[in-house]
Amino acid sequence: MKQSKMLIPTLREMPSDAQVISHALLVRAGYVRQVSAGIYAYLPLANRVLEKFKNIMREEFEAIGAVELLAPALLTADLWKESGRYETYGADLYKLKNRDASDFILGPTHEETMTALVRNEITSYKKLPLNIYQIQPKYRDEKRPRYGLLRGREFIMKDGYSFHANYDSLDETYQDYKHAYEKIFTRAGLDFKGIIGDGGAMGGKDSQEFMAITPDRTDLSQWLILDKSIADISEIPDFVIKDIKQELSNWLIAGEDTIAYSDGSDYAANLEMASTEFVKPTAYTEQLELTKVATPDVKTIEEVSAFLDVPTEQTIKTLVYNADGEIVVVLLRGDDELNEVKLTNHLGADFVEPATEDETIKVFGATFGSLGPVGLPENVKIIADRVVETIVNVTVGANEDGFHYQNANLERDFKVAEFVDLRTAKEGELAPDGGGHLKFARGIEIGHIFKLGTRYSESMGANVLDENGKAKPIIMGSYGIGVSRMLSAILEQFVRINVEKTFKGDYKFSWSMNFPKDLAPYDVHVIPVNVKDETAVALSAEIVETLTKSGLQVLEDDRAERVGVKFADSDLIGLPVRVTVGKKAADRIVEVKIRATGDTLEVNVDDLAETLAILNQ
Amino acid sequence: MKQSKMLIPTLREMPSDAQVISHALLVRAGYVRQVSAGIYAYLPLANRVLEKFKNIMREEFEAIGAVELLAPALLTADLWKESGRYETYGADLYKLKNRDASDFILGPTHEETMTALVRNEITSYKKLPLNIYQIQPKYRDEKRPRYGLLRGREFIMKDGYSFHANYDSLDETYQDYKHAYEKIFTRAGLDFKGIIGDGGAMGGKDSQEFMAITPDRTDLSQWLILDKSIADISEIPDFVIKDIKQELSNWLIAGEDTIAYSDGSDYAANLEMASTEFVKPTAYTEQLELTKVATPDVKTIEEVSAFLDVPTEQTIKTLVYNADGEIVVVLLRGDDELNEVKLTNHLGADFVEPATEDETIKVFGATFGSLGPVGLPENVKIIADRVVETIVNVTVGANEDGFHYQNANLERDFKVAEFVDLRTAKEGELAPDGGGHLKFARGIEIGHIFKLGTRYSESMGANVLDENGKAKPIIMGSYGIGVSRMLSAILEQFVRINVEKTFKGDYKFSWSMNFPKDLAPYDVHVIPVNVKDETAVALSAEIVETLTKSGLQVLEDDRAERVGVKFADSDLIGLPVRVTVGKKAADRIVEVKIRATGDTLEVNVDDLAETLAILNQ
Repeated sequence: MKQSKMLIPTLREMPSDAQVISHALLVRAGYVRQVSAGIYAYLPLANRVLEKFKNIMREEFEAIGAVELLAPALLTADLWKESGRYETYGADLYKLKNRDASDFILGPTHEETMTALVRNEITSYKKLPLNIYQIQPKYRDEKRPRYGLLRGREFIMKDGYSFHANYDSLDETYQDYKHAYEKIFTRAGLDFKGIIGDGGAMGGKDSQEFMAITPDRTDLSQWLILDKSIADISEIPDFVIKDIKQELSNWLIAGEDTIAYSDGSDYAANLEMASTEFVKPTAYTEQLELTKVATPDVKTIEEVSAFLDVPTEQTIKTLVYNADGEIVVVLLRGDDELNEVKLTNHLGADFVEPATEDETIKVFGATFGSLGPVGLPENVKIIADRVVETIVNVTVGANEDGFHYQNANLERDFKVAEFVDLRTAKEGELAPDGGGHLKFARGIEIGHIFKLGTRYSESMGANVLDENGKAKPIIMGSYGIGVSRMLSAILEQFVRINVEKTFKGDYKFSWSMNFPKDLAPYDVHVIPVNVKDETAVALSAEIVETLTKSGLQVLEDDRAERVGVKFADSDLIGLPVRVTVGKKAADRIVEVKIRATGDTLEVNVDDLAETLAILNQ
Repeated sequence: MKQSKMLIPTLREMPSDAQVISHALLVRAGYVRQVSAGIYAYLPLANRVLEKFKNIMREEFEAIGAVELLAPALLTADLWKESGRYETYGADLYKLKNRDASDFILGPTHEETMTALVRNEITSYKKLPLNIYQIQPKYRDEKRPRYGLLRGREFIMKDGYSFHANYDSLDETYQDYKHAYEKIFTRAGLDFKGIIGDGGAMGGKDSQEFMAITPDRTDLSQWLILDKSIADISEIPDFVIKDIKQELSNWLIAGEDTIAYSDGSDYAANLEMASTEFVKPTAYTEQLELTKVATPDVKTIEEVSAFLDVPTEQTIKTLVYNADGEIVVVLLRGDDELNEVKLTNHLGADFVEPATEDETIKVFGATFGSLGPVGLPENVKIIADRVVETIVNVTVGANEDGFHYQNANLERDFKVAEFVDLRTAKEGELAPDGGGHLKFARGIEIGHIFKLGTRYSESMGANVLDENGKAKPIIMGSYGIGVSRMLSAILEQFVRINVEKTFKGDYKFSWSMNFPKDLAPYDVHVIPVNVKDETAVALSAEIVETLTKSGLQVLEDDRAERVGVKFADSDLIGLPVRVTVGKKAADRIVEVKIRATGDTLEVNVDDLAETLAILNQ
């Protein structure tokens, strides 16, 4: 395709309202434009990336027997009233009336539509399992749309739904999807983790989230593409490195969640769910005598630890929570932090929050800062993190303002109802499978698979007759991929900073894209330097024809622009290979630049297709 | 793909609410389901047809340098207020408010969005022409959605827009689109006509509509596929033929418009615009004396003709119209009908309707039935169809109730201000290019190309600087294809009636689809007759693998259904080739049925791929 025919409105500067680098570059490189808050037009380059990604999905879903269909986006409210979500979904749901004043919504998701479709068409277990999906714009009237494609009001989703007569069948399809997702994201070139999901909001049982990992910014070498003018990163002066780091830090780290993953195994979880390896110590330590000591004006664990000269690991932190109206005392080792999600999940409570000072005084007779488990009334529920069971001779609050106990010991001095994993995992700790150490990263959710069970089939009466002719609710799974946000998720991993040395000896750096090859909008960017040079133009045309015949997709910059403008645009657009047709055109010699490495080589046009085929392997 | 994994909910009967056969079969064959009035889900088979059609479009548009993008469907009302259409578009426009109470619409078309996009990004004539398109659901809150996909509230469109610095460039792109549309519809296997469009509603200049021709029902042979049990159509008893004709006539003829097209040239037009060849006669006829004759109780042309024994061709019909408040007298030859669209277009009037009796008496002093052009006041505007100029010695009303003139002659007895083409063309007349005779057919609009000019760029201030640095409004074209309605348009041409003779000697007929090969959801339907027969199942699997490898898309009916059910479903689904794996499986012999002809042949599986390749040519 000739670039003059494309709509690629590149900008000289970063857009002033972008907060994350992926979005800033999508706008600057002419891939997307905002039409209204949180609503975007995908310009030709972005549309090509999306279509390529859709085709990758289609191939992998066909392989697991999922079939594509297309439901409407404009939905009558009836089914949502049936499922109950018309009222409960909240202000994010776009509601409208048609000319007959009937209620409609713009679909944010299609559980109801698909459940109704299957309810109407399938009556026997013999027609199950069924595994359907669609790729379609979805609508959520976000209160604060932000980060470009990452949180928009109209966005493209792949949403799949499976229908089963029994849970074994659901499990099988769920695993098929898990593997298909892994293949899809791998083919998209992504660094991603499948993590244990919190499926609560969808009423699901098992669920898994797929998170694209936002790259680490400490290792600058991953971010830089050095021009041939620079031999090695070590050559770049410190003040330039500092400027580059400053530029990087100007951009928010994208991703809603912190992921804890193992550097030596498959383990990965949202930090809120992350656990660590727990081994009970086998060594025996003598229990010393419980001693009450004055700790005037000492409140925090750190102050206690310093005042009494005991390590924080030898102290217990006593927290008080109100869980659905009941007071719960929670013990943690002094250097640990409570993970409230774990506490909430463990208690199975709807509502968990720190107790007020009044509630606390009622139970302990003391205020925050001197609380401890010793001598509490028996009817107070005390639960502790697993680690608490492993420490002896600990320092705890004495439930008397200004006093602590030293050498308190479990069972002898206080009792605990349950030991469970309640602490927030820390970076560097052993993963729960013992297979490596935990690393933390921010992640962008790109996919989510759920075992929905009968949440929708029961409320909507979607039954099939089983082997015995008995009506049973259909068992369902649902499977989503955020298609438009993939663009941002990919670019968070594939933007780079080009560094070059000018002929005056200065170092210049500039942002650039570096698309993974299966998703780049075109494979090769052919740039005739001077479109008034007939030899170069003819050679360029020949190259386009040859490469196209060899199966490559080629964008040819046929514009009458200065070469500096062309190169700058080419860096922004970020195709894997740039072929420059310059002064040596008469000798049929062109320059090939491999974007990912910055390497360049001169190639005779007669060898070009073959050279690119080899490089592409 | 295994059929057991597909969602193809075929029905035993035609849906009771369908009026056109294409829609009835789309529902019955499990291609689509209505979700709410005028809003459909495209089930897996329909989705595949749509995707294939989209890809045909993409290839042809790429060839003319049009680039695909994707704008949102949920649009702020702002731009529509700018263009004025927010108020003028009427009740078909879906309007809604977001959570901040801002006005939004669901896009029925995207002139405003695209004009604004280009206005914001392109400032110089050097970046033009630009030619962009998208494929997307559109929304129109139709008062009476009907005929299934032909008139829906959510439907898929391909809408393209071109932007130019001058009209020559627009003309060129308009021609490119015209040819691309012809290629696309030809590849889709359609019988279609490009007709002169009435672009008035879009504010356009030139426009052309593409109409899929609804097939003639008089020639039954085009509709029937005879089973091998029937040698020839002549063998079918008359009472069966009568039943088939009755079944055909149960279905409305689809298509909003009547098309007049030449059987010997490219000429085609909406009947409202259709013209005929007009040649002034060169023969001279002596003018006879004007004679007033009594014609008591004689009103219509037919009555006058019979009463005075003159051919209707020798009479003049005098009509009176009110055009924007002015009285206009219209003369036609007695056997012609006025085409009001031609009259309206000729007068350039907003509002044209027959004059009332009171208005008529005021001008003529007589009532309907005795009107004529002789002796009218000079200030009355008289226009006549071209044919009126060619007849002499005509009979006209005498403007006196109960009297006519005979032998009235132009100039001598009455004057005409203008002669223009005002008559309604008739089937069998010569086309205006003289290249053939007119035939009439009903048509479904599948595409429309417009020269928009500056309708949107002027109202929205979309300018570019020209060669002299002067701001000029961008010149635009717009180009639509109705993608979802294509499904119905194609099927109106490709449904068939299968006729077979039972072994009792009865004749049975049933509806069937017969998809053109480039759009069929799969190429081949492989049907193992008995899925408990291991040999047949294994052979079927081998066939699927072999044909898939040879590049064919295969649907395998792996369901444990009776063979009658499988064959009936196969006829409804309508793939081009059916391969039945039956009793001769052990000998590797299968039956191949070519749907379009009803021909069957037995083929050894080892020769199958090659045989199908030959048949496919």
